[in-house]
Amino acid sequence: MEVIKESKYDSYNSPTSVGIVTTKYFTFANPPDELILDSGVKFGPITVAYETYGKLNSSNDNAILVFHALSGDAHAAGYNSPDDLKPGWWDNMIGPNKPLDTNQYFVICSNVIGGCRGTTGPSSINPLTNKEYSISFPQVTINDMIKVQKKLVDFLGIKKLFAVIGGSMGGMQALQWIVSYPESSESAIIIATTTEHTAQQIAFNSIGRYAIISDPEWKNGNYYSTNRKPDVGLSIARMIGHITYLSEEAMHKKFGREYINTNNITNNSNNFNKNKSFKNNNDSLGYEGKPADFTKEFEVENYLQYQSESFIKRFDPNSYLYITKAIDNFNLSKDHPNLASALKNVKSKCLIISFSSDWLYPKEQSLKIVKALKINNVDTTYVNLISPYGHDAFLIDDENFKSVIKGFLKSVKTIR
Amino acid sequence: MEVIKESKYDSYNSPTSVGIVTTKYFTFANPPDELILDSGVKFGPITVAYETYGKLNSSNDNAILVFHALSGDAHAAGYNSPDDLKPGWWDNMIGPNKPLDTNQYFVICSNVIGGCRGTTGPSSINPLTNKEYSISFPQVTINDMIKVQKKLVDFLGIKKLFAVIGGSMGGMQALQWIVSYPESSESAIIIATTTEHTAQQIAFNSIGRYAIISDPEWKNGNYYSTNRKPDVGLSIARMIGHITYLSEEAMHKKFGREYINTNNITNNSNNFNKNKSFKNNNDSLGYEGKPADFTKEFEVENYLQYQSESFIKRFDPNSYLYITKAIDNFNLSKDHPNLASALKNVKSKCLIISFSSDWLYPKEQSLKIVKALKINNVDTTYVNLISPYGHDAFLIDDENFKSVIKGFLKSVKTIR
Repeated sequence: MEVIKESKYDSYNSPTSVGIVTTKYFTFANPPDELILDSGVKFGPITVAYETYGKLNSSNDNAILVFHALSGDAHAAGYNSPDDLKPGWWDNMIGPNKPLDTNQYFVICSNVIGGCRGTTGPSSINPLTNKEYSISFPQVTINDMIKVQKKLVDFLGIKKLFAVIGGSMGGMQALQWIVSYPESSESAIIIATTTEHTAQQIAFNSIGRYAIISDPEWKNGNYYSTNRKPDVGLSIARMIGHITYLSEEAMHKKFGREYINTNNITNNSNNFNKNKSFKNNNDSLGYEGKPADFTKEFEVENYLQYQSESFIKRFDPNSYLYITKAIDNFNLSKDHPNLASALKNVKSKCLIISFSSDWLYPKEQSLKIVKALKINNVDTTYVNLISPYGHDAFLIDDENFKSVIKGFLKSVKTIR
Repeated sequence: MEVIKESKYDSYNSPTSVGIVTTKYFTFANPPDELILDSGVKFGPITVAYETYGKLNSSNDNAILVFHALSGDAHAAGYNSPDDLKPGWWDNMIGPNKPLDTNQYFVICSNVIGGCRGTTGPSSINPLTNKEYSISFPQVTINDMIKVQKKLVDFLGIKKLFAVIGGSMGGMQALQWIVSYPESSESAIIIATTTEHTAQQIAFNSIGRYAIISDPEWKNGNYYSTNRKPDVGLSIARMIGHITYLSEEAMHKKFGREYINTNNITNNSNNFNKNKSFKNNNDSLGYEGKPADFTKEFEVENYLQYQSESFIKRFDPNSYLYITKAIDNFNLSKDHPNLASALKNVKSKCLIISFSSDWLYPKEQSLKIVKALKINNVDTTYVNLISPYGHDAFLIDDENFKSVIKGFLKSVKTIR
């Protein structure tokens, strides 16, 4: 995603940066007070990694809870150390005078249960066995994710949030929050998401999971004690994801049909075997007319591999399985005759945002949410933002996007 | 694709079936008269697997050459034996009184070079080594594919075809034919295709290739002497392909969010671990709250795996690498200032067809072809057929589609 980002990052000492932040940890659900998951399992202890930016005011009514997406984490803004090359994943949105203005709001972001970035997940040590849970970790749902975050919010002494906000899987959590805890947030900003995956959305995730569990290094989830992980499987999953995160237009504008090392290449099939980059992976090929490299000939292939190589360094394959399952199983209306019925208790003022070029979560899915909220007379604003960036648009620094969020938050209520 | 197909197959003794057909073989390019490939390599001998349906008339002017797509082969119509469960891949299109009416036309279809269904490809034996070529097989292009088919057409004694026709990669070959051999076909039917892949189209193919070459069973292409093939990699490639072949709408209509064994399931997250199907792949999971099966919970997952299992039985992974590379490298205007210039010598009357729900080769790509042909004053008809079936629509038995093709062929010229 960084490749697309046009603007420079705030430095940690910029006046619009939250600066250096420390990830904190909160542990709860110690036996015998375990959390009851949607599966019925009593599970604990649970440690939650979280960060906060800004200050909670004296009336405790200025807190905004940010939910991260599939590959995100608690580190949403600022820098964990002055040496960090990049700030948190939503640094363009969170900070002094930014839309989630830390001069006004107390912003919270935590890593989801099932994750691998500090919150208890399959790579965490099971205290009963002193080994990683691996796939003995219980199945978790989007609703379980917000149950854990409700405990965190309670722990921080906040009875009612000013807003919940999230994009993609973060938007699912925001939706679940206003349904499960209708009294617990003044407002909700629900971005580029859906109330339930379609068959195609399930299919994309499922192939990623298939790639992971079919990787011989997966070893039925028990790779932690080995020196290897199912990196190939996770890479494939990530590459598939990346195609869906970008619009066809953005991808083509960025990479087109460019060949790697274009200055050596005439883009003519009579010459395209002469470029040295084609030998990268297939040194054993030694005669003329040999195939070009099967996966590293085009710039777009280079990009996908670069992105997945960076991803596998920071993400646990088992967490990818659990979190994508939570996403695919999410179905807000499943115990209801229809979506409007599922949303009947919502009291939060809502802003729904879709992006014109997002084909993973197209605007029709946002409009279904808008319609169901309107049926319930929920105060709802809907914006379809024109953007060329596809689903990733919610992570891109864009003035229109930011001003819509800023304006909505101003309209919610006056805080002190 | 069979899953979507609504109509019954013709039986081999039906009056509209071409009946029992035998695949034939033609060998040429014996040293020292090898074929010069686009890479510059002299390659031979080359054996071509082909089938013909109908009879060549006395003036040799009623022949239609059918080009197959990525996973197709020479067996386009009829049955190779009375025991075959299914006819050839385009049986709804080819036969007595069908659009490619074998009472009138002599229809030819051959397997492409680089393939694995009878025509020389990476799984063929290299006569110099008595071992499979594997990835010592030379790179091939779409243009190489039609060079081979031109030799076959010459061998059959046909100076000028009545029509060339193909969808997807078959459409690329049809385009290349009318450019490379402008005098060699009265007409061309170019279906659901493009003159060059965009970055996204390359990306989908590339991830499939990455999955194959990353499968430990690939062994740098030399898996033929082992008992195993990179089936997992090829399965992943095929599953990715299948998502792109179906429209979001068709996939959702067919599978929705249905869980496997739905009669045992309440579709409620509190219950979804109770279904026995979840234990299929994860027998080691033994306590409540265990994850549902990671890849076999939804009907759409079942479909993708069923389709890929059937595919890996009939397709060579190395052929998948070579053919998708030929597709990705295809760029009709690469030696020209623009596409119109590349098409300047076209003399064939053209019918371009796109499908409304095809998001792999959207209608904009067909319109580019139409525009470039019109600039050259080529007699061109364009139809965007309304279909819910996505890219696969060109393989579906549809009356509108068939009547458009039938009507166009009637308009080309009168044959005896």
